[in-house]
Amino acid sequence: MDKPSLPSGTRDFGPEVMMRRKFIIGIIEETFKRFGFLPLETPAVENLKTLQGKYGDEGDQLLFKILNNGDFLAKADENLLHQRDSKSLTSQISDRGLRYDLTVPLARFVVMNRDKIHFPFKRYQIQTVWRADRPQKGRYREFWQCDADILGSQSISNEADLLQIYDNAFATLGLKVNIRFNHRGILDAFEPWLEGATNHDRFMQLIDKADKIGFEGVLNEITNEAIPNGAEAWTLLHNINNLSSNEEKLTALQNASNIQHEALLKGISEIKHLLSLLNNLPASNTMTLDVTLARGLSYYTGMVMEVVPADDRIPEDFRIGSIGGGGRYDNLTGVFGLKDVTGVGISFGLDRIYDLMDAAAIFPTESMQSTVVLFCCMDENALSSAFGMAKNLRDAGISTEVYPGAVKLKKQLDYANNKSIQWACILGEQEIADGTVSVKNLISGEQKTCPQNQILQQISQ
Amino acid sequence: MDKPSLPSGTRDFGPEVMMRRKFIIGIIEETFKRFGFLPLETPAVENLKTLQGKYGDEGDQLLFKILNNGDFLAKADENLLHQRDSKSLTSQISDRGLRYDLTVPLARFVVMNRDKIHFPFKRYQIQTVWRADRPQKGRYREFWQCDADILGSQSISNEADLLQIYDNAFATLGLKVNIRFNHRGILDAFEPWLEGATNHDRFMQLIDKADKIGFEGVLNEITNEAIPNGAEAWTLLHNINNLSSNEEKLTALQNASNIQHEALLKGISEIKHLLSLLNNLPASNTMTLDVTLARGLSYYTGMVMEVVPADDRIPEDFRIGSIGGGGRYDNLTGVFGLKDVTGVGISFGLDRIYDLMDAAAIFPTESMQSTVVLFCCMDENALSSAFGMAKNLRDAGISTEVYPGAVKLKKQLDYANNKSIQWACILGEQEIADGTVSVKNLISGEQKTCPQNQILQQISQ
Repeated sequence: MDKPSLPSGTRDFGPEVMMRRKFIIGIIEETFKRFGFLPLETPAVENLKTLQGKYGDEGDQLLFKILNNGDFLAKADENLLHQRDSKSLTSQISDRGLRYDLTVPLARFVVMNRDKIHFPFKRYQIQTVWRADRPQKGRYREFWQCDADILGSQSISNEADLLQIYDNAFATLGLKVNIRFNHRGILDAFEPWLEGATNHDRFMQLIDKADKIGFEGVLNEITNEAIPNGAEAWTLLHNINNLSSNEEKLTALQNASNIQHEALLKGISEIKHLLSLLNNLPASNTMTLDVTLARGLSYYTGMVMEVVPADDRIPEDFRIGSIGGGGRYDNLTGVFGLKDVTGVGISFGLDRIYDLMDAAAIFPTESMQSTVVLFCCMDENALSSAFGMAKNLRDAGISTEVYPGAVKLKKQLDYANNKSIQWACILGEQEIADGTVSVKNLISGEQKTCPQNQILQQISQ
Repeated sequence: MDKPSLPSGTRDFGPEVMMRRKFIIGIIEETFKRFGFLPLETPAVENLKTLQGKYGDEGDQLLFKILNNGDFLAKADENLLHQRDSKSLTSQISDRGLRYDLTVPLARFVVMNRDKIHFPFKRYQIQTVWRADRPQKGRYREFWQCDADILGSQSISNEADLLQIYDNAFATLGLKVNIRFNHRGILDAFEPWLEGATNHDRFMQLIDKADKIGFEGVLNEITNEAIPNGAEAWTLLHNINNLSSNEEKLTALQNASNIQHEALLKGISEIKHLLSLLNNLPASNTMTLDVTLARGLSYYTGMVMEVVPADDRIPEDFRIGSIGGGGRYDNLTGVFGLKDVTGVGISFGLDRIYDLMDAAAIFPTESMQSTVVLFCCMDENALSSAFGMAKNLRDAGISTEVYPGAVKLKKQLDYANNKSIQWACILGEQEIADGTVSVKNLISGEQKTCPQNQILQQISQ
């Protein structure tokens, strides 16, 4: 018999990993709810019509497609079969595919339910997505996305809420981060100076590499490619980013004579509005204007945001990029025929956050808490009274197990140890005869015998 | 542009449905944890090798298969292509499929991790499964399973835990149910009397229809098919079931001269053990020995259990079968080459529980609770102080929103109304000038003006 295995790029999450994942998801979800976001779930299986053409050619290649059920070849084109034209045949034998992200399904949901939804619509969604990418360290074919979006409101107060959500969630997780933001208007304002859209696009691609190759590296490439005014523009951005306060950066932008442009004014005005909402609120993490931040070229139209780890406890060799990002987009649902739905959203990189917290060993012990009390019976006849005591503890909210069967005490305590159970309530011959129970603290080793109705007091001390 | 749509048999879960689903799932999950079960998640995508041959021929037909990526036809057999032999070609163009249940993935996980798992292994798993069934009312192609199993322990105390979990979970959900149990040994004991396995199998299939066609209906069919001693056996079972206590039923079984058999003795002894553990525990729902209960033929080997709704508030015409079931099986992992792993498990029928609670209108209002307080600003300049007050409320654990932008009050209150928000904190011209806020109870209509730092006291009264 073959040894069973998992498909490449997929994972089982055993109990220990699951408890920690649930710890992270629970905090993010609670934060979303604290800000008034409501849950949405969409099916894993979507019509390929819904998915195709939304993620570019590369995305279409990476969609997992589901074979039609039954006699799927019945209507297949004879020539395509004969020519083994896999690509053209796909649409004849597959109508459905697996969800690729949570944004296209959100757009589809909003269009299909436009008459029922009250705007502004604030939803969060934490679900699996699938991509037929080449698996590698930290990249999976089945992974999670964790999104919050507000649809139908232009107000910058939404952006302010989302930045607060990042700050609150990471503070509660216990992970120190830097939160960066920018406005696409600031970057768009460079287009005339760089002499056109083509140069501008290329400039944006190059400065996006700054995290990897540094200021000098980007400067060299810009110079090599001879982008008009590119070196000067890049130096300007770099110098502005080195200023120490968000306000100084805004002033410097206002004074930069080569980029005066309507888009810049809009960007500066919206950032000022944002800062006026946030400036008096205590925050746990820095929120910094990063005038080089782009977060991709085509999608976002206003504010963009990004979260990067900044925690001393992360090992030096543990390099990881952003663990969250988002921004404003002006036409979410246009692709499904519904125009002018503006939106702004953020995403948490669940798998990366897990890996970071694991590497930095900052999961609190409470995230591993499962059973608190284990009853250990030395005689089958004691099980019945153990069941009664266990019920009382559970009714008091305490996770409790009765070891199934009166096996050797060592075996029962090993079980407790493997599950990090704190208390063993032992019912041996003497205890049964006396109507007592021995309550043992498995961390300190302390043990005390008490009446059977006083366990709660014993373990609460 | 085509109107977007969902694949047949799949569903979106909008915020109102999601909140109620989360209410149900939260209670079931909390109950599992209270009894020491730990979470497990396995991938949606499994190798077809893992799935095929595990669910019978019909099950294999109902598997959703994923088309291999890239040039999937490259190695396809020329003859099969030419003959359009869909069935034989499948294995050449598809290596993976979607999870069909949670039991086979559990078995695979246990076999792959046998050296790391400490038995008894108590896991729960709440995940989506997919079946290419014909969709109809209450039957979906993408639906949820919600399982708890204990592996590696023979003790009947596990069965007692699982019955308690059913009782506790439905009590917390607020849905009245009947919990039935039986032991396969009792049914197996009828085989000699019915003169062989073939008659016995047919007898079991017929008595399984009793819920639909009643005692007389089953009796007629048994008589028509002339199963030896079938009518007598069915009458015996029926009469035993009509006895008023579990103990009387056991006595009647012990005295039934035609079915004395080793399997019967084992069944009676295990049920007595079970009752000795449960009899002194207060329960919210009836737990009844139902000697006709089989829960399918081939899978279970010991105790079997089932939950059926028994709530007065369910509309009469709302007929639904069991909303939970399970039992003991002796060879979960044998199919993957690991022998002698015994297990016992239960399942909650999430979609049916939802439909029942919805039809009976017994979702508590708390399950619909989202945002508690909405700040309504009549002037953009007030947003900043609203942000400060909102932060204080959130820090106190209260879900709070600031309406994005100073639009007309009516629009803001409509938003509150649509989200069932209880409190509006209004910042109008007067309040801003005075440094106060008007706190309006949107349920009672009462409104009171108070200092901005006393909102919490106002809404806590």
